Amino acid sequence: MIFSSDNWAGAHPAIAESLVAHAGGYASAYGTSELDRKVERKFSEIFERDVAVFFVGTGTAANALALSSVNRAGGVVFCHRDAHVNVDECGAPEFFSHGARLCPVDGIGGKMDAPGLEAEIRRFPPEFIHGGRPMAVTITQATESGTVYSPAEIDAIAAVAKSHKLPLHMDGARFANALVSLGTTPAEMTWKRGIDLLSFGGTKNGCWCAEALVLFDPSKAHEMHFLRKRAAQLFSKSRFIAAQFDVYLSGDLWLNLARHANAMAERLADGISASAKSRLAWSPDANEVFVILKQDVASKLQQHGAVFYDWHVPDHLADSVAADEGLYRLVTSFATRSEDVDRFVEAC
Amino acid sequence: MIFSSDNWAGAHPAIAESLVAHAGGYASAYGTSELDRKVERKFSEIFERDVAVFFVGTGTAANALALSSVNRAGGVVFCHRDAHVNVDECGAPEFFSHGARLCPVDGIGGKMDAPGLEAEIRRFPPEFIHGGRPMAVTITQATESGTVYSPAEIDAIAAVAKSHKLPLHMDGARFANALVSLGTTPAEMTWKRGIDLLSFGGTKNGCWCAEALVLFDPSKAHEMHFLRKRAAQLFSKSRFIAAQFDVYLSGDLWLNLARHANAMAERLADGISASAKSRLAWSPDANEVFVILKQDVASKLQQHGAVFYDWHVPDHLADSVAADEGLYRLVTSFATRSEDVDRFVEAC
Amino acid sequence: MIFSSDNWAGAHPAIAESLVAHAGGYASAYGTSELDRKVERKFSEIFERDVAVFFVGTGTAANALALSSVNRAGGVVFCHRDAHVNVDECGAPEFFSHGARLCPVDGIGGKMDAPGLEAEIRRFPPEFIHGGRPMAVTITQATESGTVYSPAEIDAIAAVAKSHKLPLHMDGARFANALVSLGTTPAEMTWKRGIDLLSFGGTKNGCWCAEALVLFDPSKAHEMHFLRKRAAQLFSKSRFIAAQFDVYLSGDLWLNLARHANAMAERLADGISASAKSRLAWSPDANEVFVILKQDVASKLQQHGAVFYDWHVPDHLADSVAADEGLYRLVTSFATRSEDVDRFVEAC
Amino acid sequence: MIFSSDNWAGAHPAIAESLVAHAGGYASAYGTSELDRKVERKFSEIFERDVAVFFVGTGTAANALALSSVNRAGGVVFCHRDAHVNVDECGAPEFFSHGARLCPVDGIGGKMDAPGLEAEIRRFPPEFIHGGRPMAVTITQATESGTVYSPAEIDAIAAVAKSHKLPLHMDGARFANALVSLGTTPAEMTWKRGIDLLSFGGTKNGCWCAEALVLFDPSKAHEMHFLRKRAAQLFSKSRFIAAQFDVYLSGDLWLNLARHANAMAERLADGISASAKSRLAWSPDANEVFVILKQDVASKLQQHGAVFYDWHVPDHLADSVAADEGLYRLVTSFATRSEDVDRFVEAC
Repeated sequence: MIFSSDNWAGAHPAIAESLVAHAGGYASAYGTSELDRKVERKFSEIFERDVAVFFVGTGTAANALALSSVNRAGGVVFCHRDAHVNVDECGAPEFFSHGARLCPVDGIGGKMDAPGLEAEIRRFPPEFIHGGRPMAVTITQATESGTVYSPAEIDAIAAVAKSHKLPLHMDGARFANALVSLGTTPAEMTWKRGIDLLSFGGTKNGCWCAEALVLFDPSKAHEMHFLRKRAAQLFSKSRFIAAQFDVYLSGDLWLNLARHANAMAERLADGISASAKSRLAWSPDANEVFVILKQDVASKLQQHGAVFYDWHVPDHLADSVAADEGLYRLVTSFATRSEDVDRFVEAC
Repeated sequence: MIFSSDNWAGAHPAIAESLVAHAGGYASAYGTSELDRKVERKFSEIFERDVAVFFVGTGTAANALALSSVNRAGGVVFCHRDAHVNVDECGAPEFFSHGARLCPVDGIGGKMDAPGLEAEIRRFPPEFIHGGRPMAVTITQATESGTVYSPAEIDAIAAVAKSHKLPLHMDGARFANALVSLGTTPAEMTWKRGIDLLSFGGTKNGCWCAEALVLFDPSKAHEMHFLRKRAAQLFSKSRFIAAQFDVYLSGDLWLNLARHANAMAERLADGISASAKSRLAWSPDANEVFVILKQDVASKLQQHGAVFYDWHVPDHLADSVAADEGLYRLVTSFATRSEDVDRFVEAC
Repeated sequence: MIFSSDNWAGAHPAIAESLVAHAGGYASAYGTSELDRKVERKFSEIFERDVAVFFVGTGTAANALALSSVNRAGGVVFCHRDAHVNVDECGAPEFFSHGARLCPVDGIGGKMDAPGLEAEIRRFPPEFIHGGRPMAVTITQATESGTVYSPAEIDAIAAVAKSHKLPLHMDGARFANALVSLGTTPAEMTWKRGIDLLSFGGTKNGCWCAEALVLFDPSKAHEMHFLRKRAAQLFSKSRFIAAQFDVYLSGDLWLNLARHANAMAERLADGISASAKSRLAWSPDANEVFVILKQDVASKLQQHGAVFYDWHVPDHLADSVAADEGLYRLVTSFATRSEDVDRFVEAC
Repeated sequence: MIFSSDNWAGAHPAIAESLVAHAGGYASAYGTSELDRKVERKFSEIFERDVAVFFVGTGTAANALALSSVNRAGGVVFCHRDAHVNVDECGAPEFFSHGARLCPVDGIGGKMDAPGLEAEIRRFPPEFIHGGRPMAVTITQATESGTVYSPAEIDAIAAVAKSHKLPLHMDGARFANALVSLGTTPAEMTWKRGIDLLSFGGTKNGCWCAEALVLFDPSKAHEMHFLRKRAAQLFSKSRFIAAQFDVYLSGDLWLNLARHANAMAERLADGISASAKSRLAWSPDANEVFVILKQDVASKLQQHGAVFYDWHVPDHLADSVAADEGLYRLVTSFATRSEDVDRFVEAC
């Protein structure tokens, strides 16, 4: 009953086997091999346009490089208050970008809304040299709250960003989970909606270590080669990332793994909804379920081997959580088993 | 006949299989798993003292983090002119350290000598605020020239560094190759000689992606946790590195792989020494052989599928290389086959 | 009727004359002259203890250097939301500190309150490597809202900072105005209250360009010499700053200038309080007066030559400002004339 | 007999008086006043084209901002080995530019020569992501060795820079001394020769603190406003710099002061050339004289109140300086008196 995070799982067998399959032989290093090229082409196919792809080691690296590539002196980047870049990266975006400021934007369910974003951006007139100037907007898809921006919601955010001439980045650490949740295509969820840069995550969905920064404008790729290398994110045996993506993106493996994770989350949510003692904090769109449990229920579950974390109660729910209750996050993954879900639900 | 670099090889089968073996199950993320702990203890055993170990994704990351951890404003780091940090990392050391300056020190065969180092350090009086102040010394073992510092040579460098109170870092991207070349122990080659920080490389010697920063003073580890995380080098599934090192460091696998690579280099060197047309530029200590070939011989070899790079002719050899000759670097690895060596030698 | 900012005034005649007096002769450069030493001693006298003093060119430089000297990877600095470091320095604190994050703390009247500060600090557990870690607290005295922290209020902030082992910085761009407002001593307003670092401003109170970073722990001075030099803030003719401070700090000039500025602010406030059409937004403690005027009154004043800026309406006043009104800031200085104040009040 | 540096002098009386003259009244802050505008126009007149001018506090700031404005990841800046940016700025260029590497180029008399520069640039193929890429060239005029690049020499350097598409910066801390030495115009010595960015120094030539960064392409000015502000180099009372330049650039004051300093250097040089015991190391072009003195002569001079520094003996002079001799630098300034020169010469 491991619901702590999707990165507690290991790797899908097909991913591990792909590494075995590519272990032999030689290939040119530092991202120049045939396999690197092949996987890069696969990205272009999946996104239905020519994209530039940069393999990196962590989602934090993808995010921080993306933001650093569009920042300049005094730059301000707008993100949701709960965004990974804002609360889980120990200042990596600031470090990579030489001091960009993250401006948190509030919003229900882990999503910025367009008017809230607009209001924050307006606090920084772009020509006022004292106060900082807007540089980029970043959204997380699926969000840290397990919700998913609808295409219309992305459109609204993009419209604000574009009206201020700001590039729009998507942190897609759980890109596949969002994609299958919406039942849309990668193109429809990104560049057709105005996304300029994408952190495309594979690690949380069954890879060992496979993250990619995708630039929808390949003319921006030249500088990124230097930024990535300088950030120590260019792997000599880049093939080991390519080999993971090669299988991951073949035959819908990535989508199937995400579908499984999402289905397990739905099973959890359904079970908890039906519980007398416990309830959902909000409805999950992807593979994270936020539940309100009696604290003694949570403790008993943890004593019986369930692993999961408590979560800060957002302001708008403050009145809904009783003194003897807590808000908890449950994350499912490609590896989650339905019997573990059922055992958990039973105890709720 | 791939002699371009040891990172053109893939992974040793045992490494790849270890990733398969650890693919299942769950483990806590971000370097906190049992396997991480086990491998960290293995490092302490190997080095015969308590060490702090930080897994990272690239040798550049290990080097840059090491140097950044000891740098302050106006800092100058002393390295050999051909050192990887100086010529192959696109400014990563400067970036990670917020602007440390690398001061190149000359020296025959890729090695700094102690008097040369002393002379360079003296150019920067530590209390003179205008000119920069000495912060660290870094040596590469084995060097970029395929040579290996003897224990006495490390002692001499360390004596200079210590007399100026400078921490001493070792870039051990080819640590194993140097170790088996000297026939000494990890402890004897490092902290017993005065090394304070070590970039311990596994990637070039049969791993997919396994690098570690080793701190011989574990009290310095606290800050490094934050530096690594901020640099986007803390892997969520840290196990994928631990699993490689777990096998790599077991049953002398790492030493055996390095012995093979070195033996192949020796076989190459012996063959070329016996050649009438070609000759060694200098004698190899580890797994890199530098040879002087007629340019037409080199071209013919390349046409027949040999892959290797030419190398800049150091000043002290300028008169020894004829106009129709070139200096070339041949790198062997755990995967090099003796028949390829013999085919190469035959054509020399 | 110039009430735009105290830095719109030029220099007090005594300051300018001191530069004339010191223009001749020779003195050793880069802060090593006798005059530099003399003025440094004067700072120690004024603060009744041994302090280290670093002259710099701007208040932003003093603030950014102070914060950079105590920051480390992943660092978070706590300041009031309206603090100069947060809204008026174009990312200088982030730049100087290699990416420190400024965490804004809300509070009425430009002051953080201790419980609010405590709550924000607790959001960043110091050993949690993902989220950032508390590094420093900074307060502004007098605040950007023209208020002044009482000694007890500083004590409360300091108690929070110390309980988290965080250094406490004071941005004293308007230090003298706060000091004479409280009628206390420099020592009582700073280190006796727990202040560790102080940006001591002279520019806004009658100097041309005289700012100093004061370290109450002189053992921290060694690194600051390098930080200041690297930041291009070590002036070759450091005497030109020393010569200003020499006069500024002699015979109570600095206190008298601040008393005048504060008195002019009080005269403004009294006049506006007595007005039928206009009113104070809150009561001024130092040399900034915030008033609520009918917008047409403000416009007419501006047409008649008054210069002043409008100000964002804080949330707690949102209901108190009518649709046809605005919130405006009036800043007085050593150079403000009472007849200008009276003319302004008359029109209010 | 102060020959230690031109920044040991104070300020010319006219400069100090200008500060007195502008001390009264009000002016808009942060570089937006009428006087700022007037002086900026004066720069455009002097340079015979539209230029963008940024007042800053130190020459180091001007240099570091200039280089930072043209640097990108992995950037390498080429300068003479003795350049101020390389030996006297404590890493400010690296800090401001987020890690640009300074690549020292050797050259006799403090001047890079074009072939030497070309050779160094060629070591960094611009598309090779591992080794760093050329970003800028900077020359010092007059040089740290008291020599002056001829127009033809600047042309040769500029041709190399332009052939590699590199912007060319001039560190003009002693711009006026070089200008009157060549008897040319500001335009002829800069943009007509291919200079793109200029650090224009007034401090060493009679100002208290007046440095300007001049951009010959005003379209590059927009970003510089943010870079300067973020670097804490935008002065609130910017008038105090403008007021100095206003007088400095009026009625040939700046040229006359430089002519005096150069004449004093020539007088020194002539006297020493005529000495039996002492001799010039090389012939001065501007206001720095390098002399070879018996060490006991030097000591005696210092005992009699002469202040000057010894200098490192360049390699090409190693055989020319006897064991009992030393190389010394003598700097003259606007304030140097001929009787001090004569007293010095007499003792040589």
